[in-house]
Amino acid sequence: MKIICKQEKLIKALNIVSRAVSPTSTLEITKGILIKTEGDIKISLSATDTRLSITTAVDAIVNEGGGVVVQARLFTDLVRKMPAGDILITTDEKNVVFLKTDFADYELPGAEAEEFPRIGAEEEGKKLQVEKDGLRDMIDGTAFAASTDEGRGNITGVLFEIKDGILSLVALDGFRVAIKRERGEVFQGEDLKAIIPARVVKEVSKILGDTAGEEETQLDIGERRVKVFTEETLMRINLLEGEYIKYKDVLPKESKTSVVVARGELLAAAERASMLRTDGKPFVRFSIAGGTLTVSSKAAQGRGREAVSAVQSGEDLEIGFDARFLLDALKAISDEEIEMLFNTSVSPCVIRPVEGEKFEYLILPVRLSTVDV
Amino acid sequence: MKIICKQEKLIKALNIVSRAVSPTSTLEITKGILIKTEGDIKISLSATDTRLSITTAVDAIVNEGGGVVVQARLFTDLVRKMPAGDILITTDEKNVVFLKTDFADYELPGAEAEEFPRIGAEEEGKKLQVEKDGLRDMIDGTAFAASTDEGRGNITGVLFEIKDGILSLVALDGFRVAIKRERGEVFQGEDLKAIIPARVVKEVSKILGDTAGEEETQLDIGERRVKVFTEETLMRINLLEGEYIKYKDVLPKESKTSVVVARGELLAAAERASMLRTDGKPFVRFSIAGGTLTVSSKAAQGRGREAVSAVQSGEDLEIGFDARFLLDALKAISDEEIEMLFNTSVSPCVIRPVEGEKFEYLILPVRLSTVDV
Repeated sequence: MKIICKQEKLIKALNIVSRAVSPTSTLEITKGILIKTEGDIKISLSATDTRLSITTAVDAIVNEGGGVVVQARLFTDLVRKMPAGDILITTDEKNVVFLKTDFADYELPGAEAEEFPRIGAEEEGKKLQVEKDGLRDMIDGTAFAASTDEGRGNITGVLFEIKDGILSLVALDGFRVAIKRERGEVFQGEDLKAIIPARVVKEVSKILGDTAGEEETQLDIGERRVKVFTEETLMRINLLEGEYIKYKDVLPKESKTSVVVARGELLAAAERASMLRTDGKPFVRFSIAGGTLTVSSKAAQGRGREAVSAVQSGEDLEIGFDARFLLDALKAISDEEIEMLFNTSVSPCVIRPVEGEKFEYLILPVRLSTVDV
Repeated sequence: MKIICKQEKLIKALNIVSRAVSPTSTLEITKGILIKTEGDIKISLSATDTRLSITTAVDAIVNEGGGVVVQARLFTDLVRKMPAGDILITTDEKNVVFLKTDFADYELPGAEAEEFPRIGAEEEGKKLQVEKDGLRDMIDGTAFAASTDEGRGNITGVLFEIKDGILSLVALDGFRVAIKRERGEVFQGEDLKAIIPARVVKEVSKILGDTAGEEETQLDIGERRVKVFTEETLMRINLLEGEYIKYKDVLPKESKTSVVVARGELLAAAERASMLRTDGKPFVRFSIAGGTLTVSSKAAQGRGREAVSAVQSGEDLEIGFDARFLLDALKAISDEEIEMLFNTSVSPCVIRPVEGEKFEYLILPVRLSTVDV
């Protein structure tokens, strides 16, 4: 192999594929990045761990076709520290990799390209095109709520569902449910379900964020895997198996109390009030009465009380929350006004937009009788 | 006590004094911050650990004089999250602290102001005024080289020396020496020596960096402590005791080889070459010959060679270094060109400006016969 490419383009691609390198893998070759020539003016970089594979293309001058697997960490660190400009990369028959710039000369051991796990040719799945920033927003607004307990099966994933022309992303962990919805022409007649590991889908969102200048993302959803394409990059993700939990059953159909509040104001108030609890149990109490939502907390270190102005409908209510779940949800929303719906002090609270159905967060309360707050 | 002060001013002062709070202190009261009224329009905040005490003034409306010790962490976190604007702070006879804004109401336990360690009235020391950014530059350019081994006595400190009208800061750790010098009218006839703990003097540099808008800093150097003043802030630092090591004896008087090189170029080359050694021993070899400084390294993972153009005087030379010491020194210098002076492959190397004597870094080599590089 003999190629010339620009340091600034190479490092950008290395940063993308590095997200799929598993430095702790027991399979030595997957600690590496595959560099392969693709015709005369492109090379591809690929990395894979058990759940995510990434391939991305880089402009290059290919003098001699071929491929090699380089040590991901060392190669990336070295290229990152090189000055912008041309780098000549060659290999010999023993897979030694030579890097050459005007002033520098490096020689790194590589491995046989053939040993790198093949991202096999697969049947095509259902295809759709989504707006990139919208997809990122849906991922970032749900994935945080997925269970992080690997023993909990497929609720460590995010459900990706198309039904009745609506795309929904759903994540839950037993204490809360996060849902983002998008209605679109493109989702019509394409009903499907796929569960994507939350840890991986968060990486995908970051990679999409790194691919500046592209507005659309293509998805290809198969039985066992989903592929996400941008112009230069392909990500392949293994899906989680099994039926996803019937989350719709837990969403309350009606409410006895509701408040409309300014999201930022409530977020700041709940954040401050929860600080008093330095015991790792940041509980807060909501007291809804007379058109005011009072957020309060107490602990050995003192007590605090915040008044948040609210438009109240229905009955007065006292209810307790673990502030972490509340703050996660409030941070994931960008709307300036939100509606909160309640029934009793032991039934779940729902946070949703004042209009529409773009998101829905459900949070279980803590019993005020068991937590002194 | 009853005071009103602006959140934005209070948090700035809290950030400064927090640097002297010792969260792990066994003396409970020193985990706190003393708030004290100072006349009608100022309050002072103070914090202290065993080596550093800080007091800073904040504008406030004092309705009722007094003082209280608050829990540093909780109080600072809470004020940080409050919106900009007025905060009313009051205390009751049990030292409970009440914080009130338009919408929030907090009640935190405090402690008796009298219990807070007193920064006693002391005899005045020798006083001098230095340019703030110049002082920070001297601290940041030396303190990194001080020993971090607390068992090594006063070489964990930075020597602050005035002699023959020159202010020198010196730090060393047995492998290297870092010296910064400044000549000034103000240092004439004021010979003195003081050893300031490196860990503390780094904090002082950061605090000086936080006090924007002030160009001069006053120092008051006594037998056992140094005081550093800015307009609003006083820092008091306990000095280290004993005679400082006679560092001048190790500075070579002459050299057999010298090179003038571009600092940035050498820094980047040494950084890349040292990366090959992932065994925690980032050794590099310098080969000086024919007007080129070649920086090279080899390891199980490969080999690298960088050519740095140099203006060479004297004999050719091969010498090895631990790149960390070299990189620390090169990063601490701002000059674009530097001179490096050598004698043999086992004697120290000196890095200094092409002209003048503003800095001097001495680095011990590693024996090429014992490290395979």
